[in-house]
Amino acid sequence: MGTVTMKAIMKQTAGPGLVMTEVEKPTELGPRDVLVKIRRASICGTDIHIYKWDEWSQSRIIPPLITGHEMAGEVVEVGSAVTQVKVGDLVAAETHIPCEHCYQCKTGRMHICKNLKILGVDTNGIFAEYAVIPETVLWRFSKEIPLDFASVMEPFGNAIHTASVTNLLGKTVLITGAGPIGLMAIQVAKVAGASTVIVSEVDPLRIQMARENGADVVINPAEKDLVREVYKLLDDGVDVLLEMSGNRKAFEDGLKCVTMGGEVSVLGIFGGKIDINIDALLTMRGLTMYGITGRRMFETWRIADELLRTKKVDLSKVVTHVLPFDQWEKGFELMLNKQCGKVVLNLD
Amino acid sequence: MGTVTMKAIMKQTAGPGLVMTEVEKPTELGPRDVLVKIRRASICGTDIHIYKWDEWSQSRIIPPLITGHEMAGEVVEVGSAVTQVKVGDLVAAETHIPCEHCYQCKTGRMHICKNLKILGVDTNGIFAEYAVIPETVLWRFSKEIPLDFASVMEPFGNAIHTASVTNLLGKTVLITGAGPIGLMAIQVAKVAGASTVIVSEVDPLRIQMARENGADVVINPAEKDLVREVYKLLDDGVDVLLEMSGNRKAFEDGLKCVTMGGEVSVLGIFGGKIDINIDALLTMRGLTMYGITGRRMFETWRIADELLRTKKVDLSKVVTHVLPFDQWEKGFELMLNKQCGKVVLNLD
Amino acid sequence: MGTVTMKAIMKQTAGPGLVMTEVEKPTELGPRDVLVKIRRASICGTDIHIYKWDEWSQSRIIPPLITGHEMAGEVVEVGSAVTQVKVGDLVAAETHIPCEHCYQCKTGRMHICKNLKILGVDTNGIFAEYAVIPETVLWRFSKEIPLDFASVMEPFGNAIHTASVTNLLGKTVLITGAGPIGLMAIQVAKVAGASTVIVSEVDPLRIQMARENGADVVINPAEKDLVREVYKLLDDGVDVLLEMSGNRKAFEDGLKCVTMGGEVSVLGIFGGKIDINIDALLTMRGLTMYGITGRRMFETWRIADELLRTKKVDLSKVVTHVLPFDQWEKGFELMLNKQCGKVVLNLD
Amino acid sequence: MGTVTMKAIMKQTAGPGLVMTEVEKPTELGPRDVLVKIRRASICGTDIHIYKWDEWSQSRIIPPLITGHEMAGEVVEVGSAVTQVKVGDLVAAETHIPCEHCYQCKTGRMHICKNLKILGVDTNGIFAEYAVIPETVLWRFSKEIPLDFASVMEPFGNAIHTASVTNLLGKTVLITGAGPIGLMAIQVAKVAGASTVIVSEVDPLRIQMARENGADVVINPAEKDLVREVYKLLDDGVDVLLEMSGNRKAFEDGLKCVTMGGEVSVLGIFGGKIDINIDALLTMRGLTMYGITGRRMFETWRIADELLRTKKVDLSKVVTHVLPFDQWEKGFELMLNKQCGKVVLNLD
Repeated sequence: MGTVTMKAIMKQTAGPGLVMTEVEKPTELGPRDVLVKIRRASICGTDIHIYKWDEWSQSRIIPPLITGHEMAGEVVEVGSAVTQVKVGDLVAAETHIPCEHCYQCKTGRMHICKNLKILGVDTNGIFAEYAVIPETVLWRFSKEIPLDFASVMEPFGNAIHTASVTNLLGKTVLITGAGPIGLMAIQVAKVAGASTVIVSEVDPLRIQMARENGADVVINPAEKDLVREVYKLLDDGVDVLLEMSGNRKAFEDGLKCVTMGGEVSVLGIFGGKIDINIDALLTMRGLTMYGITGRRMFETWRIADELLRTKKVDLSKVVTHVLPFDQWEKGFELMLNKQCGKVVLNLD
Repeated sequence: MGTVTMKAIMKQTAGPGLVMTEVEKPTELGPRDVLVKIRRASICGTDIHIYKWDEWSQSRIIPPLITGHEMAGEVVEVGSAVTQVKVGDLVAAETHIPCEHCYQCKTGRMHICKNLKILGVDTNGIFAEYAVIPETVLWRFSKEIPLDFASVMEPFGNAIHTASVTNLLGKTVLITGAGPIGLMAIQVAKVAGASTVIVSEVDPLRIQMARENGADVVINPAEKDLVREVYKLLDDGVDVLLEMSGNRKAFEDGLKCVTMGGEVSVLGIFGGKIDINIDALLTMRGLTMYGITGRRMFETWRIADELLRTKKVDLSKVVTHVLPFDQWEKGFELMLNKQCGKVVLNLD
Repeated sequence: MGTVTMKAIMKQTAGPGLVMTEVEKPTELGPRDVLVKIRRASICGTDIHIYKWDEWSQSRIIPPLITGHEMAGEVVEVGSAVTQVKVGDLVAAETHIPCEHCYQCKTGRMHICKNLKILGVDTNGIFAEYAVIPETVLWRFSKEIPLDFASVMEPFGNAIHTASVTNLLGKTVLITGAGPIGLMAIQVAKVAGASTVIVSEVDPLRIQMARENGADVVINPAEKDLVREVYKLLDDGVDVLLEMSGNRKAFEDGLKCVTMGGEVSVLGIFGGKIDINIDALLTMRGLTMYGITGRRMFETWRIADELLRTKKVDLSKVVTHVLPFDQWEKGFELMLNKQCGKVVLNLD
Repeated sequence: MGTVTMKAIMKQTAGPGLVMTEVEKPTELGPRDVLVKIRRASICGTDIHIYKWDEWSQSRIIPPLITGHEMAGEVVEVGSAVTQVKVGDLVAAETHIPCEHCYQCKTGRMHICKNLKILGVDTNGIFAEYAVIPETVLWRFSKEIPLDFASVMEPFGNAIHTASVTNLLGKTVLITGAGPIGLMAIQVAKVAGASTVIVSEVDPLRIQMARENGADVVINPAEKDLVREVYKLLDDGVDVLLEMSGNRKAFEDGLKCVTMGGEVSVLGIFGGKIDINIDALLTMRGLTMYGITGRRMFETWRIADELLRTKKVDLSKVVTHVLPFDQWEKGFELMLNKQCGKVVLNLD
């Protein structure tokens, strides 16, 4: 009997680019591993970093590696000790693989496990027909959720995690940055009862998408002063800032827009040190700032599932492209040129 | 110069009923008092208790007393030390008048002041052309809010206070009882991002209004078993119970519907002792139960204002009747016969 | 090669009493099971219920069963998929065995798992030389903690869970009931910065032990009116009530002692329905009530470990007897006659 | 009848230094003002800034001004509308004078009022025999509290506010900076149940005082690497950082010491922009950071009162000097040379 192969998108050697190639289908499962037939996979900004082979990728990625981590699939085989899923279950995957025994894992913070491995970064990922994934990170999503949306539950979870650190009912919110997660955060903030959602964004396509996703006001800081505009709209500034731009100026101006005693949730990555007046912007104004990474496992996933199950959030306004797996290069090109929201690859 | 009089609805003597009569317009203001010209007044269940002269009223009310506490009005004169409002401001009133110096008042709990007085119960109320109200309890509402809705911000605040003790985003909610505050709570829970809102109610008119206010499912416990129906809809029961019926059976069944570790917010008054299995329903299931009275001063009012200012909540589905002040008896009749949502009296 | 046996305390048949007998030492381990050599075991009130064969035991326990669940032991063998502990580790055990896949387990509430099994109740327990325990519930305690204290970390965790739902720094606390967990709660409340800890207890030995464990005041409600005495000491009553008596009158009086807006943590089990005025005691006074069962896994255990590691809590004031395993009957007798705090059995 | 005068310490002209002089005793009280006979006054770092006439003072202080804001005194006269205190009450003063009508004041955040005035900075202060203070900011302290300690309740409140944003029971804590407030925070953290309190400090006197106030470990970062030392002591780092140094390096190293998902409370003022890697230190590690200013009014004061009333905290280890009012210059000299903890001036 010959080896069974499958298609996969790989970083084969240290350098820019990715290739689709045939690799051996995984056959060995650890006791708590699960073999998942991938049905949808979506492209994350992290995949683009790996594609480009930027500084971070060079320091972290060890080729050969199957990339990709956002997916919806079907359980086709389970390890001997698996109890949480069974063959036939439809699953999405939390991409943070926790050790389950460190201090963080034992006290409700698995998403920031001390020994964290990331799917498709530190282990083979899901841009492939099949993937081996530990049962610990699988989420059985509700049957009412379309596969195209289930595939992006992981970044949707980022939006929810960022927006749900505080109760937004009747609160005014500023979101700096309307990339795919920012767009989803607009919908989440509106669904959570925010009275006014203001978005700061410079890219024309994203400005348009921000409006489509429900932003009450979109301000282009390349054209108008963000701080002045916000205070023109709201005498007291905003109650909550969701920073999703990774832009230093946006962050600083965003903080100035927050009312005394307000809250700030930071998901954006600035790419190094930033020069900031903590005294004037945070301490003396009594702000609380939440550093956000990943998703609460699985409190955040449950909320994501409920919002999609009951159609409170409509991800069709964020998922702009669904392409056959073979057209993955087109998907990466769209992402590289920022001509899209989320791009989903269909492996059916 | 003769005495100036005004119309007022009064409990003149100890006994059932109320009368509209001419009384002297207030002329003396304490240093922190405010004279408010009443423009809208709405009828609360408490006013009905006073009208009926029930056991509670007999023990609490000392005639002669101008009744009524829900209102929207205009500041026409201020006491010598008033700083928080000025002539011409449009205001609603928190009805819990705090002492400002007890433990509760000093630590953010003015609404449950140790020396609490209630407007229209312990002091002359607002069913009159003018009322004297301490500046401490006045709320300057946003100009976008119609007077008819501003008048019911006080009970709307009860709905918000009950529904906002926990973050409802993506949570399943059961509301037992769809009286006016229950109806408003339906809208609040939906606006706050609850994924499913189930309502338990027996009255046909209220069942219909519950649907109009956005309930996903309404269950009539006179016809179907509430607990069985809830678990049919939701395998894990509900995350949150908002008890607004004051009905013992509804409360007990409601608690059975709450998932292990869920939360319960109790606004309903049962009218005496109830026989309840705290062990099985609450303790061993790890529930948290919040006793709710009044509104946070003024965190709750701010949320109410924001939700009305931005039209996230539509109170036209709750305010079923707006009547001229002179037709107050018709309003009381509607309330007595439960043929209405909220009834607002127009004094313009 | 013959069968290896071990000593165990068993409920062999449906009826009162327990017997120490020789049983087969466990040889089969599931993939995530751990074989623990028991070094200390302590007697819980639950073990006494099983001994007495009360109504609850008759409905829940299926003989033959090795009883007991509080222990400190050493890992001597691990199943094939175990990753969280290794041979030689010293461990205590959480007695709530969760399914790991229900809603509660997936959202940080494993201690109230929908499919919960309890060690020594639903599965063979730890009154034996060896026990098979799933890795999920094992806690590797710090080496500074004496075995005698490690054995009672499970009930100590109840005390912590009850006392840590709110920040007690500078708060006044009433603890109703000074059984072993109540005694530990006194120490926890004092360590947590409670300014005044009042205890209500009727038993003379427990009154004395309450004082030794640091109670500022002990009130005997058989001699004096609890409510009057508390308000004599503290004008505003207490900020927090920890109910640990399971006594209906204590609970009702305890609630009356709580200041408006205060908090109540209920661990005591009343043994059926109680007649209580929720309106007057809870709702209209704005209290929050937490139903407590088990221990947060493992947030509570971490706190327990830290408080014992650093000797902030001294359990020698609660562990009154350490007996050789063979003298287990004496231990049960002490417990039956309430002539003790915690009784630890030494299997070394 | 001639003018009555009193002694006061003043900034008479724009420039360094202060003078004690005779000024007119205040005679006019606004309706909500209170005349307080000052009995103790203590010197704050802010007073030293004003003395030195640093950049901040030059931009904020308008001479002539009576300086000073920390005090304990006796009410000797009240304005016509005052209800919260009466003649004879012993009071300390919150130094943040709120407007009572802005968004912050109306929603439980008076300490960060939008229109905040600071006693002894924006209005005449309390380094005088008498001072006029609004009733809103007065705290009637418990009679068990010595005047010397009541005078420093305001900075003690800073320590409590910083240390009580999270429940410290069983938590490990790092305090960067052991000035007077840092020293008080050590005691607060220990009283709150912190299992280990590590202090970072370079000054020899303060190192010694940190030990006397209960620090488990004091690390001198001028001699040893703070981060390495902390992780040597605690594998997981600390749960909570209380930043009280205003030192940029201490803050950066302190953040590195916090465990993933830990909490950071920042009271220290860095004096301008700092260059910091928010990504690596805060966001990707899931930290929460609280900007602290002032004291919750009056939740924090109540805790301060309780901890002093019951002698849980001993401020005699922080108040190193009590001097007669006339020797104020010696007090300032001690502060300028950092040869002291808190310096209290006695006006009796």
